[in-house]
Amino acid sequence: MAKNLTTRKEDYSKWYNELVVKADLAENSAVRGCMVIKPYGYAIWEKMQAQLDKMFKETGHQNAYFPLFVPKSLFEAEEKNAEGFAKECAIVTHYRLKNDPDNAGKLIVDPEAKLEEELVVRPTSEAIIWNTYKGWIQSYRDLPILVNQWANVVRWEMRTRLFLRTAEFLWQEGHTAHATKKEALAETEQMNNIYAEFAETFMAMPVIKGRKTESERFAGAEDTYCIEAMMQDGKALQAGTSHFLGQNFAKAFDVKFASKEGNLEHVWATSWGVSTRLMGALIMTHSDDNGLVLPPNLAPIQVVIVPIYKGEEQLNQISEVANKLAADLRAAGISVKYDDRDTQKPGWKFAQYELQGVPVRIAIGPKDLEKGSVELARRDTLKKEFVSQADVKEKVIGLMTEIQENLYQRALSFRNDHITSVDTFEEFKKVVKEKGGFISAHWDGTAETEAKIKELTKATIRLIPFRAEKEEGSCVFTGKPSAQRVLFAKAY
Amino acid sequence: MAKNLTTRKEDYSKWYNELVVKADLAENSAVRGCMVIKPYGYAIWEKMQAQLDKMFKETGHQNAYFPLFVPKSLFEAEEKNAEGFAKECAIVTHYRLKNDPDNAGKLIVDPEAKLEEELVVRPTSEAIIWNTYKGWIQSYRDLPILVNQWANVVRWEMRTRLFLRTAEFLWQEGHTAHATKKEALAETEQMNNIYAEFAETFMAMPVIKGRKTESERFAGAEDTYCIEAMMQDGKALQAGTSHFLGQNFAKAFDVKFASKEGNLEHVWATSWGVSTRLMGALIMTHSDDNGLVLPPNLAPIQVVIVPIYKGEEQLNQISEVANKLAADLRAAGISVKYDDRDTQKPGWKFAQYELQGVPVRIAIGPKDLEKGSVELARRDTLKKEFVSQADVKEKVIGLMTEIQENLYQRALSFRNDHITSVDTFEEFKKVVKEKGGFISAHWDGTAETEAKIKELTKATIRLIPFRAEKEEGSCVFTGKPSAQRVLFAKAY
Repeated sequence: MAKNLTTRKEDYSKWYNELVVKADLAENSAVRGCMVIKPYGYAIWEKMQAQLDKMFKETGHQNAYFPLFVPKSLFEAEEKNAEGFAKECAIVTHYRLKNDPDNAGKLIVDPEAKLEEELVVRPTSEAIIWNTYKGWIQSYRDLPILVNQWANVVRWEMRTRLFLRTAEFLWQEGHTAHATKKEALAETEQMNNIYAEFAETFMAMPVIKGRKTESERFAGAEDTYCIEAMMQDGKALQAGTSHFLGQNFAKAFDVKFASKEGNLEHVWATSWGVSTRLMGALIMTHSDDNGLVLPPNLAPIQVVIVPIYKGEEQLNQISEVANKLAADLRAAGISVKYDDRDTQKPGWKFAQYELQGVPVRIAIGPKDLEKGSVELARRDTLKKEFVSQADVKEKVIGLMTEIQENLYQRALSFRNDHITSVDTFEEFKKVVKEKGGFISAHWDGTAETEAKIKELTKATIRLIPFRAEKEEGSCVFTGKPSAQRVLFAKAY
Repeated sequence: MAKNLTTRKEDYSKWYNELVVKADLAENSAVRGCMVIKPYGYAIWEKMQAQLDKMFKETGHQNAYFPLFVPKSLFEAEEKNAEGFAKECAIVTHYRLKNDPDNAGKLIVDPEAKLEEELVVRPTSEAIIWNTYKGWIQSYRDLPILVNQWANVVRWEMRTRLFLRTAEFLWQEGHTAHATKKEALAETEQMNNIYAEFAETFMAMPVIKGRKTESERFAGAEDTYCIEAMMQDGKALQAGTSHFLGQNFAKAFDVKFASKEGNLEHVWATSWGVSTRLMGALIMTHSDDNGLVLPPNLAPIQVVIVPIYKGEEQLNQISEVANKLAADLRAAGISVKYDDRDTQKPGWKFAQYELQGVPVRIAIGPKDLEKGSVELARRDTLKKEFVSQADVKEKVIGLMTEIQENLYQRALSFRNDHITSVDTFEEFKKVVKEKGGFISAHWDGTAETEAKIKELTKATIRLIPFRAEKEEGSCVFTGKPSAQRVLFAKAY
């Protein structure tokens, strides 16, 4: 186990890249921009999936599965959506390889196996799904359709980073169809709220809810709601989006329904998604120079027990205590690993589980046997204490909540300390450069100003917060009138 | 709800296709050979996934995720595997679309965005995974690797059928790495056993375990174990395979480990998978002319309650009884739907849930209120009876086991009735033509004879059963000596 991570202060980006690989979360693959999600990283993603899936189902959604490929003619049907994704998509053009006549053992694309119509590997599934919904919807009785899909998607990004931006990533995409605009808007908001609740309650990551500006909207949406989080290096991260698609896709794919009143109307739509990008957000919200820090609600291993022993007899005695404790904790719904491998030393194990962010580590040695105690270490505070064996179960159960809450509060303080209100562009530039974080500033509402500020500072409007006081002011760049502050930041 | 299915006797194939669509399991999509798995079908698949995933984890496996794409140079590294899949794979050659200069609003592949190396959409992941394992394995301490992946794969099949053979399908693929041949063989067998246990206990589908002949083996495997099931039309269906890959992939990708003794050795491998094809197997094992029949262990809705009422007051009285019963059953771990929609009539609902294979239907009408009873209908036997409200909970709990067992026994009888021992080729042809099912016959062990029999009868060797008496005999086709009977059948 090579622990020594670059520190966050030295080079945050390098620290992140090293951490992802060394903590066994993911690694780059032989395919440009595509990652391998390793078992430990995937186990965290599975915990995220399970919780989100539960929340989706509790709000009446069902899962389904739609094709990986979108025929080009469908892809281009909704113009803005097509335009938004055409520049970075993987295109299947052939369906066979054949032996290379000039190179034994090598294969080449068979030119005779050219597809009549090229297929786009889905960058998002609105097109194929709305083409399908056309067959599912005739009358108001068929609505709403509340469907979600867990899938892989591909966007041919040029600059990629593990979890944060990869050519292929895993996500869920909800696609709903409604009879009224009002209902679709309520769904858009509901799902954005579910994302916020998930982020705060499970990832222990505070988020701000709001809407995107027109230039940051999803291609093909009429409105994009989002949750934005603040990373430790002062950059914002878009953690989830929920789109009100209006009737754009229904019109593009001619999806109409007979209303109760007997009129034929276009259907209203939403789509919403979160992806493996959340893994990056989780890492950059809590982790430290020693490695990953996981909130108990998402930790695949919540408690690890490490025996410290010489010889088999001691190990047997310690194992008796450890196995009893593990069983007690498991009965309380806590996931426990008892690591009695003899191929690694305790010090190596301590460092490894610290690097991998296990919330609670319990060590049991010969002295603990004598004293009836264990040594308990918290990953979030790195504090250690001795706890009597009689009390350790209750202590650990309490810590699950306490650590979860502590991580959230710590991240919340950091985030709140990184929202700076500014009223001049000089201040604006100074904060972007020296402190980072969200900058709360007035904006005149034009895409031109937004673009100019981005060009000059690399900060973009992350969102127009839902919960913000209406406050008359002047645009920080043009001085024109503004009715509400918006949040700018440099972003992942 | 258009119920009228073609009967199985009229046209089994047509019956299947209609059932899949009408029971809302899946449908064809706009992409050639790719299906849409609809919410009800996907809910059954989710139940399969959950159970299999549990069984994999209980035997020490972890999930991970590997890239969708395989660079051509990796794809061709293991020669037999490449040869086996090259003829039917989707190839990505470009990464961008651009506006068609001759056709406003249309897109064309941008010839300037050609990939340096073509990417194969994974038809199976041995190549990309073993290229990854190379970086994971140095010493015996790194072994075994017990990894599974839930993923989509693409095989460009020319003739497709919903669930049974689709260009894109969902599956799980386990890929394990071991220090010894013995361990890898034990893993191959263990996973085949898990598939058999799953098929019999959850799908209520009896299977025969055995190995494939060389010509039916997975491309790149040294041995393929399988489970084979018998469908209602007398055709066999391969329901799961587990491959002993020897050191083929380790050699192709140069994956070696330092053994305990300090020698550098190639790693031993297995891979194993089941797919959405199991949905087809489930349908064709149990369903009848009225529609789907689901075993309770995989039914998304185990019990449906339908109120029969006139007016709101009656509905309220019935709902009181129904909601109480639903709560009682849910507390016992049974999934219940109370369908009190007023948009559909009871008769429509009865037909719909029959078509969708819900194991138990309970109807409650005004007379039941008077008598303190309910009407209970079993989907497997189509029998109805009145049960007192006091007894219905225990009755339903018992039925969950009884129906599961009944379906299994019924399928087992059918399967056993469809294994015919034959000793002459005349008999062989007669059974293939008139009865179908498995034909137990002697075979001389040559690929030539196997191919010839296939050519003449369309029956292939489904498997060489593990549990078969050694019995000296003569090949049914050539008369040459044979030491064991094998099972032939026409197959899906």
